[in-house]
Amino acid sequence: MERNVYLSLRSPEEARAIWFTRIAELTDGPGTENVPLEEAAHRVIAEPVEALRSSPAFHGAAMDGIAVRAEDTFSASTRNPLALEVGKNAFWINTGQPLPAGCNAVIMVENLNVEEDGKKVITEKAAFPWQHVRKLGEDIVATEILLAPGVEIGSYEIGALAAAGVLRPTVFRKAQVAIIPTGSEIVPLQQARDEDLCRGKILPEFNSLVLSTCIRDAGGQADVRPIAPDVPEAIKAAIVSAVEAGADLVLLNAGSSAGSHDYTVEVVRSMGEVLVHGISLMPGKPAMLGTVSVAERQVPIMGVPGYPVSALMAVEEFLLPLLAIWQKRVCPKRECVSVIPCNPLPSRPGMEERIRVRLGMVDGTCFAVPLSRGAGTVTSLSRADAIITVPRDSEGLDAGNPVQAELLRSRRQIANALLAIGSHDNTLEYIDSQLRRTHPRFSLTSAHVGSLGGLLALQRKQCHLAGSHLLDEETGVYNRTAIREHLKGTPVMLVHLVNREQGFLVKPGNPKEIHDVADICRDDVRFINRQRGSGTRVLLDYELKRRGLAVSNVHGYGDEEYTHMNVAAAVLSGRADTGLGVRAAAVALGLDFVFVGTEEYDLVIPHAYAEDERILALLDVIRSTVFRNKVQSMGGYDVSHTGEILWEYDGK
Amino acid sequence: MERNVYLSLRSPEEARAIWFTRIAELTDGPGTENVPLEEAAHRVIAEPVEALRSSPAFHGAAMDGIAVRAEDTFSASTRNPLALEVGKNAFWINTGQPLPAGCNAVIMVENLNVEEDGKKVITEKAAFPWQHVRKLGEDIVATEILLAPGVEIGSYEIGALAAAGVLRPTVFRKAQVAIIPTGSEIVPLQQARDEDLCRGKILPEFNSLVLSTCIRDAGGQADVRPIAPDVPEAIKAAIVSAVEAGADLVLLNAGSSAGSHDYTVEVVRSMGEVLVHGISLMPGKPAMLGTVSVAERQVPIMGVPGYPVSALMAVEEFLLPLLAIWQKRVCPKRECVSVIPCNPLPSRPGMEERIRVRLGMVDGTCFAVPLSRGAGTVTSLSRADAIITVPRDSEGLDAGNPVQAELLRSRRQIANALLAIGSHDNTLEYIDSQLRRTHPRFSLTSAHVGSLGGLLALQRKQCHLAGSHLLDEETGVYNRTAIREHLKGTPVMLVHLVNREQGFLVKPGNPKEIHDVADICRDDVRFINRQRGSGTRVLLDYELKRRGLAVSNVHGYGDEEYTHMNVAAAVLSGRADTGLGVRAAAVALGLDFVFVGTEEYDLVIPHAYAEDERILALLDVIRSTVFRNKVQSMGGYDVSHTGEILWEYDGK
Repeated sequence: MERNVYLSLRSPEEARAIWFTRIAELTDGPGTENVPLEEAAHRVIAEPVEALRSSPAFHGAAMDGIAVRAEDTFSASTRNPLALEVGKNAFWINTGQPLPAGCNAVIMVENLNVEEDGKKVITEKAAFPWQHVRKLGEDIVATEILLAPGVEIGSYEIGALAAAGVLRPTVFRKAQVAIIPTGSEIVPLQQARDEDLCRGKILPEFNSLVLSTCIRDAGGQADVRPIAPDVPEAIKAAIVSAVEAGADLVLLNAGSSAGSHDYTVEVVRSMGEVLVHGISLMPGKPAMLGTVSVAERQVPIMGVPGYPVSALMAVEEFLLPLLAIWQKRVCPKRECVSVIPCNPLPSRPGMEERIRVRLGMVDGTCFAVPLSRGAGTVTSLSRADAIITVPRDSEGLDAGNPVQAELLRSRRQIANALLAIGSHDNTLEYIDSQLRRTHPRFSLTSAHVGSLGGLLALQRKQCHLAGSHLLDEETGVYNRTAIREHLKGTPVMLVHLVNREQGFLVKPGNPKEIHDVADICRDDVRFINRQRGSGTRVLLDYELKRRGLAVSNVHGYGDEEYTHMNVAAAVLSGRADTGLGVRAAAVALGLDFVFVGTEEYDLVIPHAYAEDERILALLDVIRSTVFRNKVQSMGGYDVSHTGEILWEYDGK
Repeated sequence: MERNVYLSLRSPEEARAIWFTRIAELTDGPGTENVPLEEAAHRVIAEPVEALRSSPAFHGAAMDGIAVRAEDTFSASTRNPLALEVGKNAFWINTGQPLPAGCNAVIMVENLNVEEDGKKVITEKAAFPWQHVRKLGEDIVATEILLAPGVEIGSYEIGALAAAGVLRPTVFRKAQVAIIPTGSEIVPLQQARDEDLCRGKILPEFNSLVLSTCIRDAGGQADVRPIAPDVPEAIKAAIVSAVEAGADLVLLNAGSSAGSHDYTVEVVRSMGEVLVHGISLMPGKPAMLGTVSVAERQVPIMGVPGYPVSALMAVEEFLLPLLAIWQKRVCPKRECVSVIPCNPLPSRPGMEERIRVRLGMVDGTCFAVPLSRGAGTVTSLSRADAIITVPRDSEGLDAGNPVQAELLRSRRQIANALLAIGSHDNTLEYIDSQLRRTHPRFSLTSAHVGSLGGLLALQRKQCHLAGSHLLDEETGVYNRTAIREHLKGTPVMLVHLVNREQGFLVKPGNPKEIHDVADICRDDVRFINRQRGSGTRVLLDYELKRRGLAVSNVHGYGDEEYTHMNVAAAVLSGRADTGLGVRAAAVALGLDFVFVGTEEYDLVIPHAYAEDERILALLDVIRSTVFRNKVQSMGGYDVSHTGEILWEYDGK
């Protein structure tokens, strides 16, 4: 098989320097244009804007009252009130109206006495010249410079431009970015049918939509071209037609890595130059930067990987800064805060890695819980609060040491979020949704590390609450024993969330005839387990033990998933025959459910937060009828005691 | 005259509480709709979004290589390499492709040896189950909640929605805000002719454009209605037709204050209820909040003042938070930083005042220089870096004490700006523009307080540089004496900017026949002066003194303006017959110029910043040919020594 080989990996900074330097030799960017003010919002000023008109354009009243010649009033005082004759040396005037000829001051209506017949007004105070007058040019004098290049036009700038008579400001043209999706197996998102997707025959193409959005947000224009199959000639033809259609920049997605169907690099080399291939960046490594020459025009081109997270990271790293340069701007950087990773974050030396994390502000310290690091895991971006970069020369970051994180949400949103670390339950997402609806300021971020992990995080003061369902095998009581063991010194309250049915999730019709715990030890049954420290795993071990069954009898005992839903997905896909999980997960994915037992799922909340307004809001939510009804409809939940405080632990 | 009277003034918080409570009784907002993903960017999620598809939808290869059943490879090791047969128990696979039936792992191509004939591949390492496989549902499991209500859809969220097959998410409808411009004297901006503007016969209407922009940015939809004249019936008809056209909210601009032509309040009272009239907020005091009833529908209505700054402040204070509430969001707040006002900021007790300021970060401290406080001064917003609020119970803020300021630019932009305080010269704006063009990170903020004020600000370490042209009457030398007197202990360098011609600005044709300094003492000549401490005033005093003329002979000596351009505008408008200023100001406004003398205008830069990269960039700019050519074309400037360091002062 013929395979592409990466040029030596470049760091993101090196890659930018190489590509941008070459581009600067070719072009200054897409130039400028004049747009009507109505369409100027969010465009970027290209030339210093000189005022065409003065504003105000005349001397006008700044208050309602009478216009006078100030010198006529100099004799007025409390002891010597002055009468002015309306229409002769005093003229009624409203705010904004021009001063009558000869007048140079306004006396406010509140400071006047009007005679009965309205013919005279009396003032007890002299007016000084230009009092309450908006003078010509007070705001803007024609010809002065109003706005500098690089300024983005917002509502305030539109006001200044309009006042200065600049009705068609000169702005940078939007760079036209042609996005060419490539790949023989991809189909437009709207045409992707579920049955074809499930068989893996096709992949839905939606990166073009995602990338268009971020290009538009950065002031570019996206031109999504038809999908090109994995055929060098077709890719080449697509590039030619994109450039002929006026592209300032071509973005190929994907085909830039080193697989047997990755023709991007080869095609670009044949049409121009590959300047960079391979970046020491994860996700984003297989990106390619170069230029192509079409009909005398040399145009920058970029190839990005097919995984959505890689594609986005590469575009944010290289394409958005180029759009900023073309607009004489600095690429907006996200705000950074110092955070403490809850887990160690190992990383491959030599690669700069961007790790998506959720954040929680606990007692003034911001803790980071890593999300999935897969380049295909698009929810690791949509769920993320921030991105941590592990530097190239590092083998990873230690838990507990502060690092900088780029914020994807506002500081206030982070500060108003509750962080729950612990066991997963499907109701947690509904608590978040309902909390945001009833208290839009607040939200619930949850990270799933199992019940025990949650208690340990509480102990280290890394979260505000923990979901837990840890069975004491001796007493059959939930959570209390584990809390006494792990939370010494941390007084907490145990708030009941739900009782839930745990059981075996099986394919519809239960083809492997699993009816009891003993059945999962059969040779023909492949099991999918939950991770160590999870309450569900404790329950499984307990059920095995009380029947005298060894874990070694369970095929797949070591095959782990982190959530009920992922266990359900493993069963649905045939990866396993069964796994232990809640009934709601079976209901959600249309699986059958073999009841094993009912367990208690509680929230463990430190006393320190008992009066925290976010916790009070959360308690309101779980005690509401709306929430209970929703949970009941999910199947397998008993909510008759939801929200009750079961136990107060004094930490001793 | 009949006049409206304000209801008792309400604080912004009280006003919001009253209005929002009433609105909540009437409506939840404009409801929800489903939009195609292509149009979903920046919309706000209205219902918890459940995934419709799992992603990946199948077990697929996460790497290029061969797919195998892991169990088949368990015997492989370095000492015991294992040969697999392509097509039988090993299958070539590219990233993203589905695993063949029976396979559960991928071995990367890099870790394989391929036999010559390609029929066999050899591995020296066992594969573990699910190695390099993207498992079904690894990212998203169908039915799980992906996004919560109140989340704004960006590119990351579009990726998650697309991957989960949610092609028409449920979002909040955009609130339709009808903007009704009122006023008999206003005409649409595009139709406003300069000659009519100058006579004060008309006012250009552009608030609707400004307010539309900020309403759209906040997720609303703006429907700009035709201008309604100042006639109660016409205003009423405009409201009725706006509501009938589907408005969720009506915004009247202006007519809400208490002038004789302000009918808004009266009209609203006749159609519904006026809940608040008059806010203890400056600018923004004359705002009105209420509801109107049209054909059984009760709709919120708001009246805002005609001054653009007041209108914007009132809309930001009341309308934008309402749009946020309707979208179950929190109105985004601007970031706040601590700043130190360079000047005292007196304010009327009982009124909350929003003061627009420019900022400069000097030695780690952020200084604020106030801009014009006029409600009509729209450039006080476009030039502002931040807004300081003086609380209602305060008589103002002292200079030197830290206060909070809401940032209108990013912290980084503030940190990269040079702050010049001192004398005004028309070239300063060109330095800023040119600096931004050549060094997009940097900018120059200038505040004009006169030459002496600049040196005092330098002395207090409140700015990075000062423009100065202070003549020593004894020696005829510029700036050195003043620097020695005021900057003891602050070593500076004196960088020459320009020599410039100062003279009398007079109407074209010089109708008052002003040829010499003596002429401005004539009884028939009205003068316009510059403020105390300005170099131009020092020059005037010097010229008067050396001719033995008293300032009391100059009519208008006490009438002050702060910039050359404002002096020119005063002459152009007939407010004065002449004033002293630079030739460039005369050239800019088409005035004639009577030469008085050439003066030196320099930049005073502390040694402490001599190596600051922003200062180096500024020196690059003023030493460039582009800059010199531009300045020369402005008229009256000699640039032959621009950029030279004239003198180094050691602070002793």
